[in-house]
Amino acid sequence: MTLIDGKSVAKAVKQEIAAQVEAMVAAGKRRPHLAGVLVGHDGGSESYMANKVKSCAECGFKSSLLRFEDTVSEEELLATVNKLNNDPDVDGFIVQLPLPKHIDEQKVIEAIDYRKDVDGFHPINVGRMMIGLPCFRSATPQGILMLLEHYQIETRGKHCVVLGRSNIVGKPVASMLVQKANPGNCTVTICHSATKNMAEITRQADILIAAIGSPEFVKADMVKDGAVVIDVGTTRLPASDTKSGWRLHGDVDFEQVAPKCSYITPVPGGVGPMTIVSLMQNTLLAAQGKIY
Amino acid sequence: MTLIDGKSVAKAVKQEIAAQVEAMVAAGKRRPHLAGVLVGHDGGSESYMANKVKSCAECGFKSSLLRFEDTVSEEELLATVNKLNNDPDVDGFIVQLPLPKHIDEQKVIEAIDYRKDVDGFHPINVGRMMIGLPCFRSATPQGILMLLEHYQIETRGKHCVVLGRSNIVGKPVASMLVQKANPGNCTVTICHSATKNMAEITRQADILIAAIGSPEFVKADMVKDGAVVIDVGTTRLPASDTKSGWRLHGDVDFEQVAPKCSYITPVPGGVGPMTIVSLMQNTLLAAQGKIY
Repeated sequence: MTLIDGKSVAKAVKQEIAAQVEAMVAAGKRRPHLAGVLVGHDGGSESYMANKVKSCAECGFKSSLLRFEDTVSEEELLATVNKLNNDPDVDGFIVQLPLPKHIDEQKVIEAIDYRKDVDGFHPINVGRMMIGLPCFRSATPQGILMLLEHYQIETRGKHCVVLGRSNIVGKPVASMLVQKANPGNCTVTICHSATKNMAEITRQADILIAAIGSPEFVKADMVKDGAVVIDVGTTRLPASDTKSGWRLHGDVDFEQVAPKCSYITPVPGGVGPMTIVSLMQNTLLAAQGKIY
Repeated sequence: MTLIDGKSVAKAVKQEIAAQVEAMVAAGKRRPHLAGVLVGHDGGSESYMANKVKSCAECGFKSSLLRFEDTVSEEELLATVNKLNNDPDVDGFIVQLPLPKHIDEQKVIEAIDYRKDVDGFHPINVGRMMIGLPCFRSATPQGILMLLEHYQIETRGKHCVVLGRSNIVGKPVASMLVQKANPGNCTVTICHSATKNMAEITRQADILIAAIGSPEFVKADMVKDGAVVIDVGTTRLPASDTKSGWRLHGDVDFEQVAPKCSYITPVPGGVGPMTIVSLMQNTLLAAQGKIY
């Protein structure tokens, strides 16, 4: 069993990005600039955003963070999005989700210029991804593909079973892996809350991607011997023995499942670090004008 | 075994649409107007377009057909698209595919205002469909869902296997059936040219949708007893005993497979007529301003 070390892959990719940035700067170009909009003080959002800012520094990017209290109006937020759309110094930007309930998230996502939508959530990027056209690909699914590629895991003709049909992981990763591409060319099955005989299906998976947000959901009897298991779960549960008072749990019962796998991602340190790296890569592509 | 009669369902839906149109006209509104752009003289394209014009008449729509020789330049075609985008009398329009090789199809598709894209091929409509937002849904997949609905075929929790990953059928029908909706909520598997053990997978299908364009590909041993089989294939093969000199072949070996099915679509007369009806329904929705 090989433990997929997302942390070290992420580090290596960030170093490659940083080298490209230095070459750009040496050639007289300005540094890529990622802006982030953060509303409120949710613990998860705060820590994701802090990680993004830190990653920008590691990649040699300029970053800026625009903070709002959770009383911000939708109008004010949309005005900020519009300002960032029109700021020629900003290559890409993200609005950290979730947003407070009085703000229409979808409206905010669609207000972002798709050419700066480095999160890949805008319908144009989602549609182009599905069609198989160049686009900003959603960060977590793209991070999973980068891991498969890095570990030279064959995907062509493999049966990939995706647990979960969220718009940010399940649907896009299924859509990416079914494309005639490498990584890709998988036979793909999507399972979700309405699926019957879940274990019967997951046991057929050569590659199993768990993204349902249900801690330790995947047990040993749901996994085929030699499978590749990618755990996208990141549920915070209270813990008495950690400094923070909580611990991150994946969707896979790691202790049970790991011995059966050819490859498995840990939580934390698997998919998580790759999500941010994909975002960095999208920002670099935006600055280089390589997508649009 | 029940034969799914797409022709009669299509007729019934067109009558419903026509009734809605007459009510609109009685209320002082103008008739929905669908425009079509046809390049060249391909036999299939000519006959599809003629059918669309005929269906418009049956639904009480205004229709107009813009014809070009296959020597038309991309520039001229894009100018036509732009004119239709800006014509307030046109509710929706289609550009019949395929286009001659010197014209970039994707560029033409993306030039269409997504609010008039009743074929549902524009990335914005594809993306919104995948996300689960209101949009113009691609006509053939939507026609399949209408058939499932008409025959009250339960889809929730069923395993739907889709053969084919084209942008106009395989990918969108998979995307629609996985949504938390009715019809929908299926466990969905997509198979394609790189799939191994195809028969092993298709035999698990409660609903099997064949859209690979390979005549009589699906044989009896690939189908579970009691399955619902939807045949999207429309390959024209030469025939000595027909007036036209050709005959339409589906992707399913109907004679072998039909006896095992609970429901099956014939070719012709199954999915085909529903594709045009979906287009009519999208045009009505466009005229009513119900999507955008």
